[in-house]
Amino acid sequence: MDVFVLRLDHRSRDKRLTTHCALVARAFGCKGVYYTGERDESVEKSVEGVVKNWGGSFFIKHAASWKRVFGGFDGKKAHLTMYGIPFGKKIGAVKKTRGKLLVVVGGSKVPGAVYAACDWNLGVTNQPHSEAGALAVFLNGLELRPRFEKPRLRIIPQERGKKIEERGKV
Amino acid sequence: MDVFVLRLDHRSRDKRLTTHCALVARAFGCKGVYYTGERDESVEKSVEGVVKNWGGSFFIKHAASWKRVFGGFDGKKAHLTMYGIPFGKKIGAVKKTRGKLLVVVGGSKVPGAVYAACDWNLGVTNQPHSEAGALAVFLNGLELRPRFEKPRLRIIPQERGKKIEERGKV
Repeated sequence: MDVFVLRLDHRSRDKRLTTHCALVARAFGCKGVYYTGERDESVEKSVEGVVKNWGGSFFIKHAASWKRVFGGFDGKKAHLTMYGIPFGKKIGAVKKTRGKLLVVVGGSKVPGAVYAACDWNLGVTNQPHSEAGALAVFLNGLELRPRFEKPRLRIIPQERGKKIEERGKV
Repeated sequence: MDVFVLRLDHRSRDKRLTTHCALVARAFGCKGVYYTGERDESVEKSVEGVVKNWGGSFFIKHAASWKRVFGGFDGKKAHLTMYGIPFGKKIGAVKKTRGKLLVVVGGSKVPGAVYAACDWNLGVTNQPHSEAGALAVFLNGLELRPRFEKPRLRIIPQERGKKIEERGKV
């Protein structure tokens, strides 16, 4: 299953949140993120910088509207919203997706048409919290097991402190 | 097990991220969040507003330093860091905690002394992404099953659209 994220309605005040959503998408194994709202080169540069250092081929692309992304997307769509069905009840069905999956996260106000156009509207808790948090829990549940090819930097996990391996250095 | 979160080194540019971390802590069943760095009443008000509307007795408190919080905390401490041991390897041990657990999330630069003072340093993936995302995945793994007493608002999960129940209204 190839998973992509659509982050709706980016605004400049959301810089770090949109960046976090994109990095969550990458860390948990998505292929790339689309975002609508304001085009923001600083967000794109941050994400592309992480890809360059930490490996893999994740992309970030601005899109004119959610309808454009949906129209060009040949696969299932899951919208994460606090108003949706608890995701645990549907994750089994979502994991059976063959082909492509688009995971949609809001924006301040999500149009009703997005709810209608998605295959699933799913709540990661039915409490207000965080797009980045909801996305991380949902993607973790998909168990995508990503590999990050050709990283410049790689962490060697430690009980205490930090250990980073840098390519070409011993 | 009573779980608390310590968010390190808040700065005004982090307003929404710190708010998201606090709301993630609440949504996944923590009792409260401490934060260090700049005192920020707008973050506290946002979080307290959510508690008032959505129920429960979650608190947010500024603390002068992490050492103060650690010094007054009688329980185990788990620090979430991309440099740590994959959390899946330790979550079983963490879940056996009796009494209190403090979950620590960074800040831009986490002092080495924090790593040394914690019982566990755990990575939620060993990739850079999001404090809010890491916290959500880790807390979801603890399965705290919170209840939110006396909410003013409550969501009735829907396949499509939004349904909110308001206390006192029929």
